[in-house]
Amino acid sequence: MISYIEPKILKGFRDFLPPAEIARRDLIEKIEAVFRSYGFVPIDTPALEYARILLGKGGGETEKQIYRFNDNGDRDVALRFDLTVPFARFVALHLAEITLPFKRYHIAKVWRGENTQRGRYREFTQCDVDTVGSDSPASDFEILLMIRNVFTALGVDVSIRVNHRGLFNRFLVVIGTEEKSVEILRTVDKLSKIGKDETQKLLEELTDAENAKKILAFIGAGGGAGGSVCSFEQTLAAMTSLSGGSSPESERLALLRRFMLDTGIEKSFVLDPSITRGLDYYTGVVFETFLTELPDIGSVCSGGRYDNLAGLYTKSRGENVSGVGTSIGLDRLIAALESLEKLPAVQNYASTAIACLNEENGGLYQALAEKFREAGVPCEVFLEPSKSSDSKQLVKQYVLAEKKGIRWLVIPPEDLKPEDLEKCQLTLRDLGARQNREGTIYEAIKIIKGE
Amino acid sequence: MISYIEPKILKGFRDFLPPAEIARRDLIEKIEAVFRSYGFVPIDTPALEYARILLGKGGGETEKQIYRFNDNGDRDVALRFDLTVPFARFVALHLAEITLPFKRYHIAKVWRGENTQRGRYREFTQCDVDTVGSDSPASDFEILLMIRNVFTALGVDVSIRVNHRGLFNRFLVVIGTEEKSVEILRTVDKLSKIGKDETQKLLEELTDAENAKKILAFIGAGGGAGGSVCSFEQTLAAMTSLSGGSSPESERLALLRRFMLDTGIEKSFVLDPSITRGLDYYTGVVFETFLTELPDIGSVCSGGRYDNLAGLYTKSRGENVSGVGTSIGLDRLIAALESLEKLPAVQNYASTAIACLNEENGGLYQALAEKFREAGVPCEVFLEPSKSSDSKQLVKQYVLAEKKGIRWLVIPPEDLKPEDLEKCQLTLRDLGARQNREGTIYEAIKIIKGE
Repeated sequence: MISYIEPKILKGFRDFLPPAEIARRDLIEKIEAVFRSYGFVPIDTPALEYARILLGKGGGETEKQIYRFNDNGDRDVALRFDLTVPFARFVALHLAEITLPFKRYHIAKVWRGENTQRGRYREFTQCDVDTVGSDSPASDFEILLMIRNVFTALGVDVSIRVNHRGLFNRFLVVIGTEEKSVEILRTVDKLSKIGKDETQKLLEELTDAENAKKILAFIGAGGGAGGSVCSFEQTLAAMTSLSGGSSPESERLALLRRFMLDTGIEKSFVLDPSITRGLDYYTGVVFETFLTELPDIGSVCSGGRYDNLAGLYTKSRGENVSGVGTSIGLDRLIAALESLEKLPAVQNYASTAIACLNEENGGLYQALAEKFREAGVPCEVFLEPSKSSDSKQLVKQYVLAEKKGIRWLVIPPEDLKPEDLEKCQLTLRDLGARQNREGTIYEAIKIIKGE
Repeated sequence: MISYIEPKILKGFRDFLPPAEIARRDLIEKIEAVFRSYGFVPIDTPALEYARILLGKGGGETEKQIYRFNDNGDRDVALRFDLTVPFARFVALHLAEITLPFKRYHIAKVWRGENTQRGRYREFTQCDVDTVGSDSPASDFEILLMIRNVFTALGVDVSIRVNHRGLFNRFLVVIGTEEKSVEILRTVDKLSKIGKDETQKLLEELTDAENAKKILAFIGAGGGAGGSVCSFEQTLAAMTSLSGGSSPESERLALLRRFMLDTGIEKSFVLDPSITRGLDYYTGVVFETFLTELPDIGSVCSGGRYDNLAGLYTKSRGENVSGVGTSIGLDRLIAALESLEKLPAVQNYASTAIACLNEENGGLYQALAEKFREAGVPCEVFLEPSKSSDSKQLVKQYVLAEKKGIRWLVIPPEDLKPEDLEKCQLTLRDLGARQNREGTIYEAIKIIKGE
């Protein structure tokens, strides 16, 4: 018979103790509230799916990182590694049941067996938001506006760097290197990581020295990599000219700019031709989001427009569902907010507790607490007297309340009676100010609510 | 190259489309709000753990149902199949970091490869709540009160059937069958499923005919199986007498009864000696919860008191963490509320949308919508004009709004200008009443908010 098992957790996985979990929930609730206020609706999908569906066309890195196994029915299954692939499958399966344009959010955990160095986790939370079934610039803009306002709601300033992959491709046609566009976009995407010299070298290998120079000039059109020297308008004019003149793509960017001005949020956006997003599936507007006070941690929210999201899962029935979307990596965001000291440090939802002087009065203490709860004051009840002499009894309960992050301790009279709940004098200990006040329950509620 | 993958999901797993997911979130938020108002705090643990930890002492059924595999590092891992075992491991690992008594809740998915007949799912959500580190009757009572109030918050009446396993065990000592207590408790637990005759037969096999009769008499002390014929007090008196007179266990039940009276919730509780809970780990008060309007679906929330929760994961350091807790199976509850027509049917968090007459005005429509959102009115923006002739344009947008469950459609003037947002006359279409009203944005906000 087993008598002891060491209580350890898997590397790359985490327990969340209450203060961390309260902070996580608080962030999620704030993000969700913004999504909901724009009419985005939630969906959920299984954590476990057929491996064949999740892996799709396959792909080296994903295949190595995925948690994949045969279930008890010998099915080849895997844990989802992102929320995009399940969403594509979801849209293909439920196209007849949803109304297009379909605006959905999905906040859930995903799993990747990544190398756990450098603060990477194997279980982490993504917050995805997408609009599918609309090609309109208004849908691109709505995602940009909403993301900007999510960060405003979290109390941080962001700079959202926008580009249009189609405009980049037009430029590549002008310089005659369009057949290498995927490789070039991927190389340019690494610019901020590997630096200009290395990027130039890689680009020279892909094309030639002259074109490499032209590409670097194009992505520097905003005033240099990460360029915020030029205005959106100046950068757009330079990009338009380098890509052969006005085009649907340059006009779309101009319209997005007008929308930004119309909503007064233009200061949050930079047109940055070096933003390309490495992923193949983006085809239109792309963007990355940087925290103004902490740009070095990289993009905390990236996304863009794609064509034919669900193509792999739909037979050719002309169901070409394009869309625009983005994903917030919650764990990285939490780390960032923590280092900016902008993560709320809450230990308990209850601000108030009822002290326990006599175990026999447990029912009356709960009856008192119910009055606080009904008045909208979350209220804990201490379950037993502390094992101290009478004189230290209350001090011990002060200490417990402080440990639990509770500010107000209600001390009922020792001879509390059922018929006295509403009229008896309570002592209200303010553990912040270290002061006592006396009053009825209704007076106590007013004090706690600051009325 | 793969060109088509059939978009199917695993048997026993489900997608949640927005109406179902909104209803799920709404339930979870209501349940969470009650937990929080009692000072219970959330934790989270990994979905994946060492199989050795989750399986503990092992056990036939669990072992067959668990999703277990070797990960890429060849570790023997498994998906959690409940939230109790991970909580035991959590308490053992973090005992130095938590303050006792520790009141926590955990709402999360669990996975079991069960036979999927009869509406069983392989992925489902549990809402667990426990207080550990207190032996007090007040902690038992708090869980009972809170569960009762969770169901009140969900708009349903419940009958919570309470018993004390210790009292049952005392009775078994009196009749001299205490060495078979585990088997007898398990057999009695099946009473409502297999009927009285079958139970008697099984009990006779475990003891003898006379004792079987005595046991059935004991569990019928409340007036028969599921007995609500006798009052709590009458049943308690009968059980006390049959178990050899007053004992700490009978006194505890008497105190719980007083707490129920003190809080005025006594009508929600029945003392039922046939409730034993099959699980080995319960040692004290146990209970099951039945919906008054739908008792036949069985218990929607069961629980009880246990000793030494984390014993398997703690070396004998005298860390004997006892507690009391319960679990709500969200999926069964949803099915029940659905058949009682008490599940909210909401399709969208937004009650209001801005119609789109001109794609170029996308920015101004969002600027309008922001005013609604700032006033606390979630507001969607329609992204493009419908592809209809001008005369049918609005009708199509009415239809879209209705499909999306939106009640109010705001129709801006065709020549909307940035400087006119706050003063222009809007048409407010009430899709419920099929009426139009005119007014400024502030008048529209008042109408929508019912002010």
